Amino acid sequence: MSVLIRPATEADLPAIHDLVYELAVYEKEPEAVETTPEEYLEDFRNGLFECTVAEMDGQVVGLTLFYMAYSTWRGKMLYLDDFVVKESHRRFGIGQLLFDAFVAEGRRRGCRLVKWQVLDWNEPALNFYRKNKAVIETGWWNGKILYRR
Amino acid sequence: MSVLIRPATEADLPAIHDLVYELAVYEKEPEAVETTPEEYLEDFRNGLFECTVAEMDGQVVGLTLFYMAYSTWRGKMLYLDDFVVKESHRRFGIGQLLFDAFVAEGRRRGCRLVKWQVLDWNEPALNFYRKNKAVIETGWWNGKILYRR
Repeated sequence: MSVLIRPATEADLPAIHDLVYELAVYEKEPEAVETTPEEYLEDFRNGLFECTVAEMDGQVVGLTLFYMAYSTWRGKMLYLDDFVVKESHRRFGIGQLLFDAFVAEGRRRGCRLVKWQVLDWNEPALNFYRKNKAVIETGWWNGKILYRR
Repeated sequence: MSVLIRPATEADLPAIHDLVYELAVYEKEPEAVETTPEEYLEDFRNGLFECTVAEMDGQVVGLTLFYMAYSTWRGKMLYLDDFVVKESHRRFGIGQLLFDAFVAEGRRRGCRLVKWQVLDWNEPALNFYRKNKAVIETGWWNGKILYRR
């Protein structure tokens, strides 16, 4: 098995959008995906996010999508907004390669931490993060204002 | 009572750090504040965050601190990392003025949403957000890797 971990390019964005949608279906919220591949292209060009992909046989089979965020308590941090391995390509260690690259990138940039969110019922994901010695916080809720268009 | 809501300047950063620390004490995590006013200055100059302050009688008595974040599901969004009104200046409506300005800023920038986090036991904050018709999500946990230095 040969996997290439590399920065995403504009040409990868449609495949990235497909994987994001696949995970949203698993997370039982496909209707929450309001973005389009065209919007990803505009936002990627504007530097709103960065992405690392896992490529196998010329196909994008996994990704981490992240951006530089900020904590008034701990300063700059990388925030992992999405982390997906295509269902057909799980159990080969691709997720670990992607996660290791993400954690290394945060360290390289001088952050005190990296951060993300996980659904409380997603046991496979929670086990993965616990195995990686992550701190899991259960006491913070998300607040949102959704604009009507 | 006269309150001025305005963008923060570099000169405000020490007062901003004081208010952030005051809230961290209330949230029972003062030891989690690892940043310094000097670090805020560097990060503010690098554009890592933006801040709006409430000024009364020449004193900073409240703030929202935020940055442009990204959701693969909903695109660009403003993320409110910190929101404080000095304890001695609560109940005058200053928090509402600050929050309204933050929500208006997200709309002005064409976001589909604004987002933040709140502690599950912080009833006064939760009541404030519910009064503002916010969506509160309880099913997402935070994951973190903290680097050892």
